[in-house]
This record gives sequence, C-alpha cells and structure tokens, in this order.
Amino acid sequence: MQTAVRQIAGRGKTIAIVPTMGAFHKGHLSLIRRAMKEADVVVTTIFVNPAQFGPKEDLGKYPRDLKADIAQIKATLGRRARSAIVFTPKAADIYPEDFETWVMVEKLTKTLEGAKRPTHFRGVTTVVAKLFNICRPDVAIFGMKDYQQAIVLKRMTKDLGYPIKYVIAPTVREPDGLAMSSRNRYFDDTARWEAVCLYYALESAKSMVKAGILSVKRIEKEMQAVILATCPTAEIVYIAFTDLDSLELVKKVQRGTICSLSVKVHGVSLIDNMKLG
Amino acid sequence: MQTAVRQIAGRGKTIAIVPTMGAFHKGHLSLIRRAMKEADVVVTTIFVNPAQFGPKEDLGKYPRDLKADIAQIKATLGRRARSAIVFTPKAADIYPEDFETWVMVEKLTKTLEGAKRPTHFRGVTTVVAKLFNICRPDVAIFGMKDYQQAIVLKRMTKDLGYPIKYVIAPTVREPDGLAMSSRNRYFDDTARWEAVCLYYALESAKSMVKAGILSVKRIEKEMQAVILATCPTAEIVYIAFTDLDSLELVKKVQRGTICSLSVKVHGVSLIDNMKLG
Repeated sequence: MQTAVRQIAGRGKTIAIVPTMGAFHKGHLSLIRRAMKEADVVVTTIFVNPAQFGPKEDLGKYPRDLKADIAQIKATLGRRARSAIVFTPKAADIYPEDFETWVMVEKLTKTLEGAKRPTHFRGVTTVVAKLFNICRPDVAIFGMKDYQQAIVLKRMTKDLGYPIKYVIAPTVREPDGLAMSSRNRYFDDTARWEAVCLYYALESAKSMVKAGILSVKRIEKEMQAVILATCPTAEIVYIAFTDLDSLELVKKVQRGTICSLSVKVHGVSLIDNMKLG
Repeated sequence: MQTAVRQIAGRGKTIAIVPTMGAFHKGHLSLIRRAMKEADVVVTTIFVNPAQFGPKEDLGKYPRDLKADIAQIKATLGRRARSAIVFTPKAADIYPEDFETWVMVEKLTKTLEGAKRPTHFRGVTTVVAKLFNICRPDVAIFGMKDYQQAIVLKRMTKDLGYPIKYVIAPTVREPDGLAMSSRNRYFDDTARWEAVCLYYALESAKSMVKAGILSVKRIEKEMQAVILATCPTAEIVYIAFTDLDSLELVKKVQRGTICSLSVKVHGVSLIDNMKLG
C-alpha cells in the first residue's frame, strides 16, 4: 500500500480515502462517489476494527461480505475502478502482537457514544491515524451518520497537523427515512419497520423547531413519545442536543444545534442525527 | 511547511527530519550530519515542547538560542544549507487553544524516565507524530542519548504505520566522557566536573562485564559507589539494566542489555546510557 501511494504521489495524482468497515450499503457508495469528485484516485479501506468494539459488543457477528463490497465499489467507480485501490488489511497487520500506541481525542470522546463506550473512539482515532499514515490521502471522506465520530476525527486531523482536506458527507436514508447502516441487516421485518422510530423522532423535533419550540426539554419529551409509539420495546440510550463542532450540550436549539440519539431497537444499537438549527 | 514538503516530494527528493529542542551542541550537529547522508533535504525542527515538561520541570529556563542554532546548522550543512529547512513553530501553532489529541505509547513509557515523569512521553510522541504529519519525512534521526525516548518513538513510528526509516544515532561525548546535553549549560565549573560521574559509572559497569561480572545487583552497587565518589551530593534517581528494544528489566547482563541511569547533579537532571551486552 505504501509503495502504491508513493507511485501515485510521484505521478502528481491526489488520493481520497474512504475508511469503512465493509458490509456496504448506499451510504458507503455515496462516500465513494464523493471521493471520486474530490481526488484522482479513490482508496477505499475495509477493516472491521477490533479496537473500536467493546468486550460486549458485536465484533464477532458484525457483517462481513468482502466479495459483494468489492463488486459494489467497482460498479460505483465505473471506468475509474482501474486506478482505484481497495485496502483490506488483516487485524494482525494493523495490530501486531506488541502494538501499544494509541491516538486519543480527550474531551470530545467523553459524551454521547463515548460515555457508554469508553474505549470506542480510541480505537477509531488510532486506526484512522494509521490508515492516514499508510495511505497519505489528500482528502478523507466520512459520513455524518456517525456524527460524533466525524467530529472527533475532524479534531484529530486538525490537532495532529495532517495535510488532509476533511469532508463530512450527508447521511443516506432508506425510502422510509431509516438511516442506512450495516447493522440494519440484523433486523427481521417487524424490527426493521420499527427501526424507523429514530427518524420519526428527529422529524418531529424538526417540526417543533419550525413551529418555534426551541426548548430542548420539551422537544426531547416529544421525541421519547414518538419513539415508544413506533417501537414500544425501544430502549432510549440518549437523546442529545449539541453544538455541531464542540459537542457541548445546549438547552435551547440554536444555530448549529445537532440533535443526535441512540436507541436500542430489538437488541440492535442504532444511532442517527439531524441538524435542527 | 506543508507546501514546501509537497514541492520537495513533487521533485522526487527525499526528506530527513531531525526533531530538536534547540540549544545546539555537537550531538545535534552529528544528527544533522547523519541526516545529510540519509536524504536529499534536511529538515531540522526546533521546538521547546511544553507538553513534555512536567509542572515542576525546567520549561521556563530551558536554554533557547535560535540565532546561534541556525548559524550552527548552516555551518554544518555547508553547500547543502540552500536546500535545507529549519522549522520553528510556536507553541500556539502546535497546541492551539482547543487542542486535545494525544498520541501515547502505553507500556514502554511506564518505566525509567516515564516512571517519574508521567506525562513526559505523551508530550514527546504527540509532538513528533505532528511533526511527522507536517514534514512527511522519509527518514527520522534521533539520538541514543535519550535512550527511552528513542525506543518509544521507534515503537510509535512502527505501530502507527509511518513510512519512515527510523535511525538512532550514537551519543556524542565531551572529551572527559560527559554526554553532550543542552542542560550541561546549567553547570558552573565544579558541578560540570562532577557531572562526569554518570559516564564513570557506565565505564565501570562496562569493565565489570568485560571481567565476567554479569550480576546486575553487583554492578549497580559498584556504580553507586563510583557516582558518589565523583559527586558526593549526587542524587541517584535510577540505575536500570534493560533489554534494548523491550525496555524489560534484566537480572543478568546479556546480549542487547543497555544500562541507563538518571542522576541529579547539583540540581540538574542528567541521563546517560551504554550498551553492556
């Protein structure tokens, strides 16, 4: 990979990286399309990163389908597949036995997802730093679906001086509004239908803001009702209203407020978010 | 700096980086000479890194002499000064107000210097990672004088997948054996003379090993005596016998054993080391 990168840079071509864990859906493909616009060569990395899964999380059963992923990448890239690279390191390549270096973003990782997953973002920032070092991209594309991840990695990229243009691409949704996620594969028909509860809640929040209701307390209460009306067994992990970049909690919706939420639907952890202000 | 680096890489030239805190002595200059052999362009960075000083350490009084440093770099580089770069970022460039990303090597930093300086190596690895990202060197040169630092940074470079040739250059000594150090400037004549105690202790250790004495306990006892005979007010912080790469303590001197020590001489913390096995 390092040799390929050197050759690409030597020819004066730019690289856009799309770091993924595979199990592709339309969201991933939209990131690849964005990468095609941003640089000459698209490097898609597929790596189910053990360091970002907690001991009780779904690392073992996380969906893997490399053949299908590569076919979808090829179809998306069309003619440009010829110059593209898919980088699929093994866990032992990224984390050899004596591995002990970690990249950590200190404060932004303490809230939201980070509050319940204490080592998650350490795993994310470490693997992305390593992928940046190996692939030396000019542009990096991340999805807004994983909002906190996008902001944490943006901070890491800036703090550590990476000469990389950082792009956050919008969330792609199913026709009913459910955010695309590799974990959607876990659902049977009923659960799949109820999984739309996160989107309904976010849409109701947006409507309230449009109607002039800015109190986070009031909006949150309504969102809880919407979630439970759609999915009576849902476990709401959090509903948060934060400033886009600082992730600081706000009490009133204002310019740049993002509402994000985490809900367990039939045992599957889903997250979603929407810009309200 | 990032633009300069891009231009250098675009011309197919290689870069060797020499990260320093300035206050140059012959040790630094030997690193620059090594860099000249290793790559086309020498990038010397001068940055007194606040993040690697503890709250009670000598950040404020650490010697700074940028003009003299640059003159010495020029003299050392000769004709090649024309293509060389001296990178002198300010603290606010490296650590802007909202900075919160840290690179940490977990285990190798727990012993020796790290045991008494809990945040020191976090500061070292973070700033060097950032310098690597900004300067994109092909080769990096560090001195063996700061033995643990050299090993910690080697691990970071490998763990994070930097495509960088990592070079550890030998310690340069004063005629009497004292290891070159920017902190040697702190000494008056008496203290300077007594500062050689670290070197005498290491030499006595080497002699004992040559005479077949491999017991770390026996060697350490002799070293303590040598130190106090040379500098009666010395405070021995540690004398350690470790494996070169793993930094694991050994009980008997063997292949790859490094003896390292830290001694406070007239209030100034000095370190030194020597390969015994």
